[in-house]
Amino acid sequence: MIDLKEYLNTYREVINKKIFELLETADTSNRVLQAMRYSISAGGKRIRPILAMAAAEATHGQVSNVLPAACAIEMIHTYSLIHDDLPAMDDDTLRRGKPTSHIQYDEATAILTGDALLTRAFEILSSTENTSRENLSRHLKIIQVIAKAAGYQGMIQGQMQDIRAEGDELDLDALIAMHSLKTGALIEASVVVGALFGHTDPLKMDSLRSYARHIGLAFQVIDDVLNVSGDPAKLGKAVGTDMDRGKNTFPGLMGLTKATAYAENLVQSALKALELFDNKADPLRAIAQYIIDRRS
Amino acid sequence: MIDLKEYLNTYREVINKKIFELLETADTSNRVLQAMRYSISAGGKRIRPILAMAAAEATHGQVSNVLPAACAIEMIHTYSLIHDDLPAMDDDTLRRGKPTSHIQYDEATAILTGDALLTRAFEILSSTENTSRENLSRHLKIIQVIAKAAGYQGMIQGQMQDIRAEGDELDLDALIAMHSLKTGALIEASVVVGALFGHTDPLKMDSLRSYARHIGLAFQVIDDVLNVSGDPAKLGKAVGTDMDRGKNTFPGLMGLTKATAYAENLVQSALKALELFDNKADPLRAIAQYIIDRRS
Repeated sequence: MIDLKEYLNTYREVINKKIFELLETADTSNRVLQAMRYSISAGGKRIRPILAMAAAEATHGQVSNVLPAACAIEMIHTYSLIHDDLPAMDDDTLRRGKPTSHIQYDEATAILTGDALLTRAFEILSSTENTSRENLSRHLKIIQVIAKAAGYQGMIQGQMQDIRAEGDELDLDALIAMHSLKTGALIEASVVVGALFGHTDPLKMDSLRSYARHIGLAFQVIDDVLNVSGDPAKLGKAVGTDMDRGKNTFPGLMGLTKATAYAENLVQSALKALELFDNKADPLRAIAQYIIDRRS
Repeated sequence: MIDLKEYLNTYREVINKKIFELLETADTSNRVLQAMRYSISAGGKRIRPILAMAAAEATHGQVSNVLPAACAIEMIHTYSLIHDDLPAMDDDTLRRGKPTSHIQYDEATAILTGDALLTRAFEILSSTENTSRENLSRHLKIIQVIAKAAGYQGMIQGQMQDIRAEGDELDLDALIAMHSLKTGALIEASVVVGALFGHTDPLKMDSLRSYARHIGLAFQVIDDVLNVSGDPAKLGKAVGTDMDRGKNTFPGLMGLTKATAYAENLVQSALKALELFDNKADPLRAIAQYIIDRRS
């Protein structure tokens, strides 16, 4: 297996460098851009862009080609966090150890900053430096995949369901369905987008989707677990907030031990989905394991 | 000249039919989609999509080809209104005679609904039914143009400047600069996108941009004028709100009479910019005049 820590650090550095390049302008007085950079610089695991790059690698693609799309996906993820943190939504004041956008700036700025990150993502995705016919077609396909995953039949629908369900009791199926949309859809899109830069066939693409769905769900289960038993200092945010808020969570539904075991099963299924792949998929395998082992 | 009323009605009908088709799903329980349809169905002049179609006509393009992109632009416009109306922004309760999204639903839903309309717009723009190389390239160019106009260097920046300037006094140059971004950028993009479906050269494209900038600004000046002297029943919203809020407006800066004369001058300049064009540009010419004559 690979040295995952080094792999993640290397890729994170590449992503961070590129993502700030993509958020540069001569006009330093642009408040929205400042706020975009603030939220992007708050760190984060960059798990979605890394998944995109690792999926390109797993399918023997050129990893560097994925970088702009990977950064666009991270911008969409960051926009969703900024809007989710708003007073009208989850009303969070701390994210990744730093004041959330509406605390650091104000609510209007936070709304516009989220809008701007989403819009900038599509501007990046439509930028065509290389103009071969195959690339044009892939660009559009990528925009399709991401827009669908992030939209009213994907991430946004999941967030809506999550908010509406506060106080109600969801059963396991409904909880899984909600999270497949809220976090799963964009994670799956990240893997699919990466694989569009490599060589796949329908069977391999299905396997990658299955991998992504399983780790996406495992990621959420562990997020819920950490919200109960995690270390606030390592997490960079408060714990116990889900319970206070009447949120539907996996530990709330099945208890902490069973939830952890459930996440482990999901990761095993994710690994099984990669059976067809050679050792170029080792980073994807290591990331699946990391999702279980993480403490933040 | 053409019968503009009939022209606008015909195109509005075509746009309304298509835009609802683009917001359909088997899942009728999707709250976000319901709220998307609510705001889209609140009516509105559809001036941006009509401009896109009229620009295609003016450049001898196939008008029907523009329709999906025109609808996507209207979705982006509608998202910007939903977010602008939020309590943290302009805090408006009425829009086009109907309760604004956060009043009809709630604030969280309104934020997500705006996000969803923006995302859906890019999903539509990336959909490729016709796959000739020229079309692929045009699709991406259209996404570029729209994303740039709607983003942190365009519409969003303008909205940020507008909010930040409340209570401060802007001079005419600053007011023009702000509105060129806030409303001008997307109006210009609408005309450019339409022209991408026709036959242009750099000179013609520049003329169309000049036309769009002038009518965009005229549109805003008249909006400000109507906020002072308009009929609330016809407008479908309250008047006098700009002054109450300490908004920077053209009538506030130059008085009502001079502001109206200024708008008329802008329209004359817009018409002059179309001198190169034949009678296929008559709808664009009629729209310029309509901007001055409108009462809502």
